Amino acid sequence: MLAPPEFLNYIEANADKFIQRLADAVAIPSISGDVTRRPDVVRMAHWLDSQLKTLGVETKLVDLGTHLLDGQELPLPPAILGKIGNDPNKKTVLIYGHFDVQPANKSDGWDTDPFTLTIHPTNGQLIGRGATDDKGPILGWLNVLQYHAENKIPLPVNLKFCFEGMEESGSEGLDELVEREAKRGGWFDGVDCVCISDNYWLNDRTPALTYGLRGLTYFKVTVSGPARDLHSGVFGRTVHEPMTDLVLLMSRLVDRDGRILIPGVEEMVAPPDEQEKAIYRKLDYSVQDVENAAGGKIAVSDDKVEVLMGRMRHPSLSLHGIEGAFSGQGAKTVIPAKVSGKFSIRLVPPQTPDAVNPLVEKYLKEEFAKLNSKNNLNIEYLHGGKPWVADVNHWNFEAAKKATKEIYQQDPDLTREGGSIPVTLTFAEALGVNVLLLPMGRGDDGAHSTNEKLDRSNFIQGSKLLGTYLYGVAAIAGH
Amino acid sequence: MLAPPEFLNYIEANADKFIQRLADAVAIPSISGDVTRRPDVVRMAHWLDSQLKTLGVETKLVDLGTHLLDGQELPLPPAILGKIGNDPNKKTVLIYGHFDVQPANKSDGWDTDPFTLTIHPTNGQLIGRGATDDKGPILGWLNVLQYHAENKIPLPVNLKFCFEGMEESGSEGLDELVEREAKRGGWFDGVDCVCISDNYWLNDRTPALTYGLRGLTYFKVTVSGPARDLHSGVFGRTVHEPMTDLVLLMSRLVDRDGRILIPGVEEMVAPPDEQEKAIYRKLDYSVQDVENAAGGKIAVSDDKVEVLMGRMRHPSLSLHGIEGAFSGQGAKTVIPAKVSGKFSIRLVPPQTPDAVNPLVEKYLKEEFAKLNSKNNLNIEYLHGGKPWVADVNHWNFEAAKKATKEIYQQDPDLTREGGSIPVTLTFAEALGVNVLLLPMGRGDDGAHSTNEKLDRSNFIQGSKLLGTYLYGVAAIAGH
Repeated sequence: MLAPPEFLNYIEANADKFIQRLADAVAIPSISGDVTRRPDVVRMAHWLDSQLKTLGVETKLVDLGTHLLDGQELPLPPAILGKIGNDPNKKTVLIYGHFDVQPANKSDGWDTDPFTLTIHPTNGQLIGRGATDDKGPILGWLNVLQYHAENKIPLPVNLKFCFEGMEESGSEGLDELVEREAKRGGWFDGVDCVCISDNYWLNDRTPALTYGLRGLTYFKVTVSGPARDLHSGVFGRTVHEPMTDLVLLMSRLVDRDGRILIPGVEEMVAPPDEQEKAIYRKLDYSVQDVENAAGGKIAVSDDKVEVLMGRMRHPSLSLHGIEGAFSGQGAKTVIPAKVSGKFSIRLVPPQTPDAVNPLVEKYLKEEFAKLNSKNNLNIEYLHGGKPWVADVNHWNFEAAKKATKEIYQQDPDLTREGGSIPVTLTFAEALGVNVLLLPMGRGDDGAHSTNEKLDRSNFIQGSKLLGTYLYGVAAIAGH
Repeated sequence: MLAPPEFLNYIEANADKFIQRLADAVAIPSISGDVTRRPDVVRMAHWLDSQLKTLGVETKLVDLGTHLLDGQELPLPPAILGKIGNDPNKKTVLIYGHFDVQPANKSDGWDTDPFTLTIHPTNGQLIGRGATDDKGPILGWLNVLQYHAENKIPLPVNLKFCFEGMEESGSEGLDELVEREAKRGGWFDGVDCVCISDNYWLNDRTPALTYGLRGLTYFKVTVSGPARDLHSGVFGRTVHEPMTDLVLLMSRLVDRDGRILIPGVEEMVAPPDEQEKAIYRKLDYSVQDVENAAGGKIAVSDDKVEVLMGRMRHPSLSLHGIEGAFSGQGAKTVIPAKVSGKFSIRLVPPQTPDAVNPLVEKYLKEEFAKLNSKNNLNIEYLHGGKPWVADVNHWNFEAAKKATKEIYQQDPDLTREGGSIPVTLTFAEALGVNVLLLPMGRGDDGAHSTNEKLDRSNFIQGSKLLGTYLYGVAAIAGH
């Protein structure tokens, strides 16, 4: 056994208290993308800082400056740096998490108030915005700390913490902070490995460790022409309509099966060989799992390997929506004057925003030129990040594999994720150490969706896993 | 001279009083689309009813029942029916107008309070919500009535009135009222022609008579697949994405120049011959006028005839927007689960919703089938109306032409409008008589926009025109 049985028992015995603390965290609507909720993000930072201090963690709130949101200059929520333990005979593990959340309104289709943690009466799921993304995992670390603080038992490793409040809005200010603190004498000096718990199992039954993430490049392509919105009766068929142009451009980016139509983008990525395909074949995941998670029989293929590669090792392009067009209910007969299509490409090695963006811009400009429209085209790169892949044979992963086996009695799936957590790469590059993604939640948690949940067992077993992983690091890595 | 000089002098001499009455009317914020303003619409009905009674008109307020607005069941504002004169030797003219207005807030960008009629200090424009749409024209009729009432001079025709308070919100309840009152013994029994003053000159210098309106058919086409919005990192390239399908469908509806790509729709309309083109060539309107009104150099053609035919005699298809996709600011990496494209087609004779809708549905289904997508398609027809064209050689138009020439010393442009005023067709079909659109305001009045205005001269000359038109009907139509 890696962790002491008393630790596991303590987590089990205090489950209800831990769930209450999660409810307290969920009750703070710390939506980083909403101007009006910025004070709640700051409140959340102070709440978390206070929890950490109570548990013996030395903390520092870091002012990250200001940024523009919806035309307003706003102070960024502070990042929280923490440290506990300074034993040169122990490994030092850096923990990352984020305390901001995605927007959520009851009217989006939630069955319950998103900011009131609701325990499902039959299956015990903990339902609320942030439950799994990423307050549950952060609180998992608090649970681990609490056992050691209350029982005055030293942690098996030195811990450092980096918690941010802008992850759902591009992690503004974080890269600079990480790079600054990674230097000699900085807060992260001496860190031996990083553990991030901000992703999910592939399915709802098999724990996972994640060693790869796709990168991202996000575009806003704007077509404008009239000085103001026009009446479609008066102006229909007298002017070049921006929506007509934009929709045509957007229709030329990706096909039904997700193949990217921008020349050169797909070609960057080497096709998989049989050995690589075997990795995907082995994962405990079926096409049925994808369709269950999506809630529809809409998988791009009946071949599990194809579907998993679509998520893990191929780039993808999604059309997210249009800003400036009529988006309400009902029937408005408007010709919108200025419309902005939003789309993003998930990148895989060796793709990077720097390499892909010029191809995107060139293609959009060429396609727009073909239209010979009198409207104007403007292409903006909103944000992005490089993809990341880690060494799964490092002791950091070995510790997590062994801890997983102890807590869940099964080997974890080793996965690459389709999503992007840009800070992963920042940590890997700035610190030059192994980074592990150790997910707490399940694939069906609905992180950015309505009725986001974290299963009770994932919260409680997951808290045990985090602690056991630390003992694993101490046991396997030595010092 | 059609009208007695005393009438023209009376209007001129009382201009300031008439403007004051318009100010009283504008001061009532009778916004039919705003639940909180419904009492003001009712107050406006009673104000108008009282004015009509004072001027000798027999009136009846008609209860139109209730409707749902923003989830609330609200009583509809009453319609006002009026009649004055019952001389079997005179023609009977039915006048239509509406006393409700579009929403307006100072914060929308108005230079002055929208519900305080403001006289521009240099150009004399009368600025306020409803000044031109449609309180100015209604009050023009009151001005005509006042001359005859004060001087105890009989009107040259019998008049009937139909004023409604829901025009800006779909004219709810009006069709049924018109059809009911058009029957033998109904309020409109015996009407010989209709005059509607609720549209605008083409430009800011040439009076117009309007003899055609485009119809409309409005569609909502929905593609759905997942049970909930998905994370583009997790699901990108694993599922068929509804936005990808919808955008492709929408891109196949219309081309840059507004040509409709749905087979059979364009083909319904006979191409114009040289004689018809000559009508458009003659209109006092330039491509520059269109581009000034649109606020951009984006006309579909440099040929005025092409541009005007695009508005007046060709169908048009506009893409209004997408419901259910990401429409906010910023960069959300969502795969929307259910997206509804909104588009409408402006129809011209002989097109009707009944004839066009099956073509639209067939085409959308065929194009969607070609995609071979696993998502679902749903096509909804939201609303629509038939186009309307009147005989410009009817005595009703001849009277208006002659009256226009007398008041403005120029021949009116004979126009077809790109927009839709469904009640026009209802009157034409229910009563079986000629309907004339006799605009009071100018093309730059900004009817549904900020800083709506009516030029002082259009209000005063326009009042003279309305009266002169009645004398024209009496002189030209005989009895």
